[in-house]
Amino acid sequence: MSGRNRTCVSVDLGGTKLLTAVIDESGAILRREEKPTPVGGGASAVIGAIAASVASLRAAAGPDELPPEGIAIVAAGALDAENGVIRYASNLNFTDVAIGDELKRLTGLPVLLENDANGAAYGEWKHGAGKGSNDCMFITVSTGIGGGFVSGGKLIRGATGSAGEIGHISIDRNGPLCPCGNRGCVELYASGTAIARTVAADIASGARPTGRVGELAGGDASKATSRLVGQAAAEGDAYALAVLADAGSALGFALAGAVHLVNPEVIVIGGGASRIGEPLLGPMKETLHRYGIKAMVESLRIEQAALGGDAGIVGAAALWFDTRSA
Amino acid sequence: MSGRNRTCVSVDLGGTKLLTAVIDESGAILRREEKPTPVGGGASAVIGAIAASVASLRAAAGPDELPPEGIAIVAAGALDAENGVIRYASNLNFTDVAIGDELKRLTGLPVLLENDANGAAYGEWKHGAGKGSNDCMFITVSTGIGGGFVSGGKLIRGATGSAGEIGHISIDRNGPLCPCGNRGCVELYASGTAIARTVAADIASGARPTGRVGELAGGDASKATSRLVGQAAAEGDAYALAVLADAGSALGFALAGAVHLVNPEVIVIGGGASRIGEPLLGPMKETLHRYGIKAMVESLRIEQAALGGDAGIVGAAALWFDTRSA
Repeated sequence: MSGRNRTCVSVDLGGTKLLTAVIDESGAILRREEKPTPVGGGASAVIGAIAASVASLRAAAGPDELPPEGIAIVAAGALDAENGVIRYASNLNFTDVAIGDELKRLTGLPVLLENDANGAAYGEWKHGAGKGSNDCMFITVSTGIGGGFVSGGKLIRGATGSAGEIGHISIDRNGPLCPCGNRGCVELYASGTAIARTVAADIASGARPTGRVGELAGGDASKATSRLVGQAAAEGDAYALAVLADAGSALGFALAGAVHLVNPEVIVIGGGASRIGEPLLGPMKETLHRYGIKAMVESLRIEQAALGGDAGIVGAAALWFDTRSA
Repeated sequence: MSGRNRTCVSVDLGGTKLLTAVIDESGAILRREEKPTPVGGGASAVIGAIAASVASLRAAAGPDELPPEGIAIVAAGALDAENGVIRYASNLNFTDVAIGDELKRLTGLPVLLENDANGAAYGEWKHGAGKGSNDCMFITVSTGIGGGFVSGGKLIRGATGSAGEIGHISIDRNGPLCPCGNRGCVELYASGTAIARTVAADIASGARPTGRVGELAGGDASKATSRLVGQAAAEGDAYALAVLADAGSALGFALAGAVHLVNPEVIVIGGGASRIGEPLLGPMKETLHRYGIKAMVESLRIEQAALGGDAGIVGAAALWFDTRSA
């Protein structure tokens, strides 16, 4: 067997997209399959679709790879990772789905289950923008804000596997109520959804001129998106830059608190909204440096994520190889 | 040698008090010595005083203990733990003091250096109120607010050993400036100093009647302390209860954010102000439960610290035994 690579099958189980891949110990994606998640068919259809992808990826195995040792899945929601159960996932309409046992029955392979943001954090730390560090915080800014962190070279999972809910750090205890129950969560100020909501409100109320963003949305509040704001900012539009500066500043303030608690060496920023770049990240960094304790922020690196949408599957595979012996 | 206990010498190097003890692997304090820290004599006097205590404790060794393997020191300030250097400690007037090398020269023993709050966190986790858990957050409420945490059974140190600065989590980005540079740090609302400051301001301004607290302070703003507020609250004084409810609520709000990030199984509360008990801790728990994400707070335990002022030396010794092989 020597010379052949250990492999596992990684699965990123999203509410719309099901991404499955064979990944080796170096983090290389050997082959992949992507298809819509058949959410309408219920848990058995979803699990059947995963098993089918696993079968087709196994059938195509190359000569220099060992058979996959197991299946490493990342998914959103409340998980009982230890027992391979998805307790509740709104995007999948899952309640108490024993995905680990079911997939093992269908494929014969053992299953590892992990929270999607934790998986992505581990992937970016192990093979992405946080590579080489010991203490890495990952934050993903898209519809919502999520994250995870590695400290002393270990993924921090917490008592119920829910550590890293960076989006639900508050920046204002008198701020608006968040659906999570908290007040002033940074997700309400700096997510893609929050940015779009700000613009939609400004278009609808006419309270302030929305410049190029309003033009791009055709004056239609329902067409406001963070992508359009990013586009207008790239063209130098003052309104778009101001909206993103507010969001970035909120993000930087929340990160200061997170840094005070976990003292990372590097923060990796991923997710769609983060691709806006400097108009969002510049004010974020400035605020983080203004309010963060000097000894902790002066040597802190901020990096954009390197693995994009593959962070979850790469991280799931890395967790497999780092926690299961050959 | 079998049957004899491994030991180390632990040192809690405070700005006023120097506590030195021989501790065994079970966390038992075999003997101790406490004396004032000779801060006025500079670093050499302080290090000499530590060496003298180490020598007298070694001289008194019992028959069933092995000789101490090393010295484990906890101290406040900015440390370079890896190199045994206290970078800056305002309470000791230390700047770049190579305490590890110096003590090794004087005693022949290797030295481990750790932040005092991290040491206390480790002690409470290993042998105190957090015993048996895997994920434990420790918070100490006294003059300031500090803390530390253990996650997955490991002390979380962070990139520069500064993790756990729970007192500098903000609850309001529009709040007052903190000496640390941040705004709205919970330490400004809920530390013993903050509680005393509130009362002093109310006595001085006469803006609201200060009830039994004002009586106990003899109407003298400079005599306001959190201890008096605790005493008045224990007698049922409405003003004292209101002041402590505000402080406890601020603390609970900050803890919600910390819980969202590190997802502990148990929070251990220590420090002088925490001895006030329910008048402070009741509102703290209530706020934490109101604003914390259900899945993370419903199973969370809150415990009062068990080791008191010995948490630091007990934790330092535990770190020694857990990180150095016999």
